[in-house]
Amino acid sequence: MIKPLDHIPTLADIQATYKEIKPLIHRTPVMTSNTLDRMSGAHLFFKCENFQKVGAFKMRGAASAAMRLTSEERARGLATHSSGNHGQAVSRAAQLLGIPAYIVMPSNAPEVKKQAAKGYGATIISCEPTLESREANLEKVVAETGATFIHPFNDYNVIAGQATAALELMEDVSGLDVIMAPVGGGGLMSGTALIVKYLSNDIKAIGAEPKMVDDAFRSIQSGKIEGNETTNTVADGLRTTLGEKSFEILSKELEEIITVEEEEIIQAMRLIWERMKIIIEASCAVPLAAVLKNKDRFKNQRIGIILTGGNVDLGNLPF
Amino acid sequence: MIKPLDHIPTLADIQATYKEIKPLIHRTPVMTSNTLDRMSGAHLFFKCENFQKVGAFKMRGAASAAMRLTSEERARGLATHSSGNHGQAVSRAAQLLGIPAYIVMPSNAPEVKKQAAKGYGATIISCEPTLESREANLEKVVAETGATFIHPFNDYNVIAGQATAALELMEDVSGLDVIMAPVGGGGLMSGTALIVKYLSNDIKAIGAEPKMVDDAFRSIQSGKIEGNETTNTVADGLRTTLGEKSFEILSKELEEIITVEEEEIIQAMRLIWERMKIIIEASCAVPLAAVLKNKDRFKNQRIGIILTGGNVDLGNLPF
Repeated sequence: MIKPLDHIPTLADIQATYKEIKPLIHRTPVMTSNTLDRMSGAHLFFKCENFQKVGAFKMRGAASAAMRLTSEERARGLATHSSGNHGQAVSRAAQLLGIPAYIVMPSNAPEVKKQAAKGYGATIISCEPTLESREANLEKVVAETGATFIHPFNDYNVIAGQATAALELMEDVSGLDVIMAPVGGGGLMSGTALIVKYLSNDIKAIGAEPKMVDDAFRSIQSGKIEGNETTNTVADGLRTTLGEKSFEILSKELEEIITVEEEEIIQAMRLIWERMKIIIEASCAVPLAAVLKNKDRFKNQRIGIILTGGNVDLGNLPF
Repeated sequence: MIKPLDHIPTLADIQATYKEIKPLIHRTPVMTSNTLDRMSGAHLFFKCENFQKVGAFKMRGAASAAMRLTSEERARGLATHSSGNHGQAVSRAAQLLGIPAYIVMPSNAPEVKKQAAKGYGATIISCEPTLESREANLEKVVAETGATFIHPFNDYNVIAGQATAALELMEDVSGLDVIMAPVGGGGLMSGTALIVKYLSNDIKAIGAEPKMVDDAFRSIQSGKIEGNETTNTVADGLRTTLGEKSFEILSKELEEIITVEEEEIIQAMRLIWERMKIIIEASCAVPLAAVLKNKDRFKNQRIGIILTGGNVDLGNLPF
């Protein structure tokens, strides 16, 4: 067992995390595309977390948090509120450890998401589709079961887990100039920025964000956590705002955040589908859109891009 | 240079072909899926030719035929009639060799297909959407340019190229019980059946075909090449009937052909998209549909499946 983190993960913390979660995750492949290299003028290395367990990098963070529980805590189980990839990841991590999972989901969550979590053996608690109801129901289930709440991003244990995607990418690809990831709650980007800082003097960690929900971009500019007036983006995994832990890390460690328009995201998503023949969520296309928008700047650079997940509703594509 | 084949490819022919075409093709990965293994009760190994150059195994056969031309023949170029993957493969092979390609396409072929071939530097010759017009226009362009016609499947050179997909699969995965591929014109299946026979006493080569276009199934039963009354299948790559060369090889070497219904193909296609996060054509889903339909028979077997291509019209999905 490794200990829960009460501080920003160090290199040793991330390395210990990686060792611990290895049995629970896939080492995902890095893919390249001659066509996309030609179109971008850069050398792109796509870290395929869409092939991760549950189809998203979230498995790393959930596993990292779960592996830090004592056997007593484990026996009481894991809990979270999420109808998205984090909920699936917590469910699957619990299943792999043979412990219960309790997932609070809004009553209007797609049936397929509920079924997926149930398929991993989780207990679904239905709530009203408001943040208040989600939090109240989560509190209740934690009180009743003694399960441990795993936050989707504002948690050093989770951040240490997410850092392992870039860790693997740097092991597999030498001489990178940039590593890019999309920014939602900032868990993945925080872990990525930390491991890049620890392992390289040359690589820049750059975030990419839809202009429509550019709260992280504005937060770093203003020096405090900003919200979004609307969350009307096709990149539905990125609607969340930063937490204080991810905000602190990103403020210090991030090179910058590039924002892109909705149409640019959809075009980049379609390019990856059509040219690379892999299924990615719209959120993953945001970094590629940022590269294509700034071709001169990234010309001939070696750019790692974390493709965060592949869970899409095939009946509701943006193209 | 290797010589053109006037006989059924031997093991040495296929090995020499492989050596020759290596610079023109990708070595595609083999993917697995815990979920699909669980659902099928078998161990499935997917040879991902959807990640091949031009997005389809056809690149292997086109390269094999092209590499056998003399320098005089090469200079005059390659020709074929195809609005599909074979046309793209011939175009791309010619581009890689720095020689011309002439592709006869029906006037009603999708604009995106024409643009793709043009993108590889091919000259497109538009014709009426009938077989007669295609053949007449092809004959004309061959007469005018001296280009060499590359048949999509009824050609020993092409068959030797297609055999290299299963060759790589057998190198990467040990102890296979079965290798399955879909059957259209029979070029891939012929090459697969041959290499399986040459390299293994244990592996069975099994074809999979839509019931809607089960001409190969009926041809092997009746002992002569049968046609299809209709070609109304979602697996649009498999509408072709066998040629005499592929018929001869399949009659002798194939273990059997399993046929599946349209709905089973669509379900299997969707499973691969949703669970494996990769984009495949409907044609590729036919072998998985055959396995899922015969779970008892394939229980616990190690089954290699050649995913033939990933070129789909995202605006026209069957789900």
